[in-house]
Amino acid sequence: MIFGDSKSPRAELVVIGDEIISGLIADKNSQYLGARIHEFGIEVSRITAVGDAASVIEDCVKLALQRAEWVVLTGGLGATHDDITKSVLLKFFECGLKKDSKVAAMLDAMFRNRGQGQEVPASVRSQCEVPEKAEVLYNEKGTAPGFKMLKGKSILFSLPGVPMEMQHLFEKYVGPEMASRGEKFFLHRLIKTVGLTEADLWTKVGSLKALQEKTTIASLPSHLGVRVRISVLAKSKQEGELRLDEAESFLAQRLSNYIYGKDEETLEEKVGGLLRKKSLTLATAESCTGGLIGHRLTQVSGSSDYYKEGFVVYSNDAKVVRLGVEPRLIEEFGAVSAPVAEAMAQGVCRVTGADVGISATGIAGPSGGSELKPVGLTYIAVHDRSGTHCKKFIFTHDRGRNREHAAQAALNLARLKIQ
Amino acid sequence: MIFGDSKSPRAELVVIGDEIISGLIADKNSQYLGARIHEFGIEVSRITAVGDAASVIEDCVKLALQRAEWVVLTGGLGATHDDITKSVLLKFFECGLKKDSKVAAMLDAMFRNRGQGQEVPASVRSQCEVPEKAEVLYNEKGTAPGFKMLKGKSILFSLPGVPMEMQHLFEKYVGPEMASRGEKFFLHRLIKTVGLTEADLWTKVGSLKALQEKTTIASLPSHLGVRVRISVLAKSKQEGELRLDEAESFLAQRLSNYIYGKDEETLEEKVGGLLRKKSLTLATAESCTGGLIGHRLTQVSGSSDYYKEGFVVYSNDAKVVRLGVEPRLIEEFGAVSAPVAEAMAQGVCRVTGADVGISATGIAGPSGGSELKPVGLTYIAVHDRSGTHCKKFIFTHDRGRNREHAAQAALNLARLKIQ
Repeated sequence: MIFGDSKSPRAELVVIGDEIISGLIADKNSQYLGARIHEFGIEVSRITAVGDAASVIEDCVKLALQRAEWVVLTGGLGATHDDITKSVLLKFFECGLKKDSKVAAMLDAMFRNRGQGQEVPASVRSQCEVPEKAEVLYNEKGTAPGFKMLKGKSILFSLPGVPMEMQHLFEKYVGPEMASRGEKFFLHRLIKTVGLTEADLWTKVGSLKALQEKTTIASLPSHLGVRVRISVLAKSKQEGELRLDEAESFLAQRLSNYIYGKDEETLEEKVGGLLRKKSLTLATAESCTGGLIGHRLTQVSGSSDYYKEGFVVYSNDAKVVRLGVEPRLIEEFGAVSAPVAEAMAQGVCRVTGADVGISATGIAGPSGGSELKPVGLTYIAVHDRSGTHCKKFIFTHDRGRNREHAAQAALNLARLKIQ
Repeated sequence: MIFGDSKSPRAELVVIGDEIISGLIADKNSQYLGARIHEFGIEVSRITAVGDAASVIEDCVKLALQRAEWVVLTGGLGATHDDITKSVLLKFFECGLKKDSKVAAMLDAMFRNRGQGQEVPASVRSQCEVPEKAEVLYNEKGTAPGFKMLKGKSILFSLPGVPMEMQHLFEKYVGPEMASRGEKFFLHRLIKTVGLTEADLWTKVGSLKALQEKTTIASLPSHLGVRVRISVLAKSKQEGELRLDEAESFLAQRLSNYIYGKDEETLEEKVGGLLRKKSLTLATAESCTGGLIGHRLTQVSGSSDYYKEGFVVYSNDAKVVRLGVEPRLIEEFGAVSAPVAEAMAQGVCRVTGADVGISATGIAGPSGGSELKPVGLTYIAVHDRSGTHCKKFIFTHDRGRNREHAAQAALNLARLKIQ
């Protein structure tokens, strides 16, 4: 049990859809719901996925309502699904349908706005009919409304399966209700690191004894770096945020420069923020990454303020002609070498007038390796007025991963240099 | 029911792990298992995810074995999980542990190979102890063996939760067993299209009456194009493949040039294949896509044979200096315009000597739009010896999606031009 506390209220999820159990599509809702519900101090004790079969769904709903205070259904509410969830609810809650005029008005408006004063199709029109015993969850993001229904001490929410619509209704109706009834809050913060293995990270973090009770730290390795998740169980949101701040500074002391951001922040946003703050411009010279570093930097809105331009110099010729890399460097050391990476970073600054230049040259694989220069060997260089810094890596994954690693390492080297 | 046939054998999956139900990590195993088991003509009727609580797991296993002929457990076999799944199995199957010498030998060898003749840690050593009534599934990809156990007419497989290990043991033991007992095969093929909406695709496909019985067609829209999934239920693999071929030519007749590949094939592989076949080279000139087109083209191993180089010309200046775009074009029509896109594609061929040039210029958003030139407006051009072709798009998503759309449209325009 995550809470170590059997008195926590419980929730169960019931996921409805043939396409889920047959592996046709991934269930993207359960992880979202599991994480969000958890934050309200409610334990998700079971998730059941079933097909579009009325008797099986009914059986699942019945058992879930017996075991849990909160039951959240997703899926089976679309007009293309024969409204199977709605008919199961009618039977289980022993009630009929009523017409909801607000849903009807919303559908009218939605189709009118789709141009040429379109009429609501007959198949969609049935969405106005809702279970008599349900409170309607009005859905601005789609045609299927959700439902809230009560059974004894338990609350059932039935939400559409389209992730965007499901999330919308969860945040509008379910979350606030859970918060209003909650006596404790489970809050999280993600601290993002780059450049450390999971084992090295824990060595640096050391003993967790200084942390308060009910503050836990978990490491989540990903191929681009280890994220550290701080979780606290608190009596109020305020108290929780305070304890997250405490744990964050604890980690900041121990991991210092390996941390580049938190929660949703990306490495390219961090680099962009630093460039903006220092009024610097940047240019890229990519070989093995083929444009990925430029792509990531320009994912950030407003990046044209500091990103000047990029070169994908995939051939030796391009390295020489575009960036002025001396041919003798390539002849003597090879295109995948520190001198060439350095010359690329210096060259891209000279040619474009940018303040900072990033370069990457490597052997992404699967072919092209040799005994002396194995697949994965990559040189990353960053140049600015203070000089040129080059680092050697040997990545040990497949082509796609090696390229992602190289781009991440390049952005990180730029971050450290600009900082 | 997907099979429309209640006589199909059934399988249930039980997913074990606190980290799954609390939304800490996504369950990546169920979709894989759902899809693979389905291919053996076995219906997955229920997937249940539960935490690391022995009594709940036992309850789930019991019910699943009552309802289904095949039960597959994933997770809870690692040494860090207190071996909770194994202890549940011991209790449920009423048996003790025995030492498996082959597992012991495999662990010894595994740790020896990790360098310096490392010893097997005590925590891992317990993996040699297996349930007396189990057939052991030897795991070459990790330290946790899987188990096969029989209960009445049902077969239970317990597999580790690490996706790579789970897949390895499924393919080595579970799949072959399912195939050997199966009387029918459920086969799939994905046909990939680009440039059509789902509605337009179905209009072009028209009536499905020409298809044989038990051949079904489903459309799977994604933001980069609609994939069409052909499914057949057949008595042998050979018969199934034949019927897939039939359905594929049926679709090829109706969708012709909108189809670019099948199954795992990507658009960049298709473009690369065409370039190679015709001995042509290609260069890219990217503005709004920031390097993504180059990145995708160079994802293909061996792409250096036909990909010459790329320019990320994010500023007007770079468009003029690098590619020779005439400044008066930018002044008169703006950087996001057909004449500039065309000049970029022509310029990148002239400057690099490539046979084919691709360019993209647009407003990815969220800012930068105007009434005349809204966010999402994008011009893509492709130039070769036969001339320049330019196409205008208005993408209506967020920045990230708009850029992905633009790169996809650019690769597709190149495909059509080279073809």
